[in-house]
Amino acid sequence: MRASGIVPSPLAGIPVSIKDCFDIEGETTRAGSIVLGDAAPAKTDAIAVRRLRKAGAIIVGRTNMVEFAYSVLGLNPHYGTPKNPWDRGTGRIPGGSSSGAAVSVADEMAAIGIGTDTGGSVRIPAALCGVTGFKPTASRIPTGGTFPLSRTLDSIGSIGSSVACCALVDSILAGDVTLAPLKPPPLTGLRLGVVQDYVLDALDDQVAASFDAALIKLSKAGASLTGIRFTALQSLPEINRYGGLVAADAYATHRDVIERRKDDYDPRVASRIMRGAEISAADYEEILRQRSAMIMESTRIAAPYDALLMPTVATLAPAITALNVDDELYARSNIAIGRNARIVNFLDGCAISIPCHDPGEGPVGLMIVRQGGEDRSLLAVGLALETALRQ
Amino acid sequence: MRASGIVPSPLAGIPVSIKDCFDIEGETTRAGSIVLGDAAPAKTDAIAVRRLRKAGAIIVGRTNMVEFAYSVLGLNPHYGTPKNPWDRGTGRIPGGSSSGAAVSVADEMAAIGIGTDTGGSVRIPAALCGVTGFKPTASRIPTGGTFPLSRTLDSIGSIGSSVACCALVDSILAGDVTLAPLKPPPLTGLRLGVVQDYVLDALDDQVAASFDAALIKLSKAGASLTGIRFTALQSLPEINRYGGLVAADAYATHRDVIERRKDDYDPRVASRIMRGAEISAADYEEILRQRSAMIMESTRIAAPYDALLMPTVATLAPAITALNVDDELYARSNIAIGRNARIVNFLDGCAISIPCHDPGEGPVGLMIVRQGGEDRSLLAVGLALETALRQ
Repeated sequence: MRASGIVPSPLAGIPVSIKDCFDIEGETTRAGSIVLGDAAPAKTDAIAVRRLRKAGAIIVGRTNMVEFAYSVLGLNPHYGTPKNPWDRGTGRIPGGSSSGAAVSVADEMAAIGIGTDTGGSVRIPAALCGVTGFKPTASRIPTGGTFPLSRTLDSIGSIGSSVACCALVDSILAGDVTLAPLKPPPLTGLRLGVVQDYVLDALDDQVAASFDAALIKLSKAGASLTGIRFTALQSLPEINRYGGLVAADAYATHRDVIERRKDDYDPRVASRIMRGAEISAADYEEILRQRSAMIMESTRIAAPYDALLMPTVATLAPAITALNVDDELYARSNIAIGRNARIVNFLDGCAISIPCHDPGEGPVGLMIVRQGGEDRSLLAVGLALETALRQ
Repeated sequence: MRASGIVPSPLAGIPVSIKDCFDIEGETTRAGSIVLGDAAPAKTDAIAVRRLRKAGAIIVGRTNMVEFAYSVLGLNPHYGTPKNPWDRGTGRIPGGSSSGAAVSVADEMAAIGIGTDTGGSVRIPAALCGVTGFKPTASRIPTGGTFPLSRTLDSIGSIGSSVACCALVDSILAGDVTLAPLKPPPLTGLRLGVVQDYVLDALDDQVAASFDAALIKLSKAGASLTGIRFTALQSLPEINRYGGLVAADAYATHRDVIERRKDDYDPRVASRIMRGAEISAADYEEILRQRSAMIMESTRIAAPYDALLMPTVATLAPAITALNVDDELYARSNIAIGRNARIVNFLDGCAISIPCHDPGEGPVGLMIVRQGGEDRSLLAVGLALETALRQ
């Protein structure tokens, strides 16, 4: 029908997968855990699911995820770790926490995968699996009916095969009254700031090569690229040294259940949640204060540019086996792989990751970033860059 | 000039007093403390002060307050406790924390006193001194340039001699584009809910008598009064048992300084601030969760009414002397005198206290309450009730 030009509703007939942390009427929301396995089935759809259905989407299934969305690697000891479609032979991580969402799109089981992004959980699996992932400003889409990781940082994003795809679904999720097509700005003269501090540290060789090649391609296409300093980013590990807002928020959600059923949690997730028990209200407010200050700083830094650019993830997807057995490697990889993406959550911004690797190479994501609330402008820039990179 | 009908600007020539926690260009903001005595003079006016000046107000002086605004009694061991103008012979508390603000209006040194209200700090001194005090919804007026007590609960209010007076100043403080006069609803058929739970416990005899007499007067004037239940209020002491959001927020602000200079704080204020050190981020979020739930409950309860009514303070103003020497009495009085007013801060609502006692009696305030954001509707109802009570 679509091929004949008959489109009864924006998502009519489009297969969409839903991350396991969203309520779907009549189903139990497990959020990748066994702790919630005996919870009652949801009485109503999450707001996001309701909006998708109203637009005609076909919900084709629930996707696996990191337990309670609290890691960016994608491992799940309860239900198994989906292998990254790029290289199933080696058995690499898909990235997370929306692991199955990215796999469902990369494998073309769904046209769109709906996920949540609290510290990169949409963009990281999209980048590592070679698809497109959009994280809107947190306040853009209501989280009602979604099992929370952090009430401060949770956002609802979409994974698809193109910017236009993510933008359409985002408009539907946000309840936009009109679904306007994106108007990409001309690439000539587009001002792109390439962040030099922090986000370029310790890149895998291929990530560095793909990222640089993309910048050259954009520059040749007419964009004006400028290396910019954002030294305040260096303080992020210190600000979040006790687990940050996410740990405190997660502990607030879990403390009653985790006291009773700790053994039923993935021990790596449990230990991350338990860090939140040590965070005082004053510490929390101090982080919020530092966050406000850094948002103001980022507004100043981003003002001259149409978008900021950085690699979504500093590495290619590593193998699952070593991560399954080595706690220290797990902790280190979690920090390294999440480093760039989680900046955007901390800054309450919006970002999209688009593939920038050559066919046949390991997937690398180019992350395009703007300030909070500038979602539609960001998506328009994303469409312009995607078009240039695909040529 | 005003008598001749010449009014060059809304507050032209009107004397206004400013609580000591607001920045005034060129002056040191001490917030009733000696800790801040050596701070640099403020470089610019607080936003509220700037807006008042722009409307023509004459800033006649800074008013004394409870140190850091953290008590509703009005005692200040550093700069002295202003005596309540009602009964200077006995030497009674003025109420606080905006103690001097209320005294400046009751003594007619200023037409308007600007204060802050985090848990009743505008309405309580207004009620105890026999004047009118308005606490808007917290988000209505920017707090920029005001020394904070609680970033969650602080609001900026005004004390004056009438509802119209407070409403005009509130519009100016809120930056309203047009200063429309209030349109009071007709009293006939006005639906007033009289809260029966919690707020009527342990009233002083005269408070109960004045409050009842006011209700009878309003009823005779045509208003429809209904006793209503709000049993959830009974859980407030339990929810806030560790000092609540205020203690946590205050500790976050003070922790660096109080570690070094604890002896320079009023010991009663210091001990209240230090309670915040024990509050975890998860406890804080749990209070926010309970707060959201109670706001939803209050929306349901308040929906059928044009306003809810309760006594602003359960007692008359007690004598200063006993409170100065008796820590236990101080703690008990602080809880009792603040009990009703702080409900409104917890519920993120707005409220106005208007005098409802007979001339010559001890001052008693009638508190008129609405949900957050309904400030102008509340003030219109306040004007209608004030008119009825003055007849």
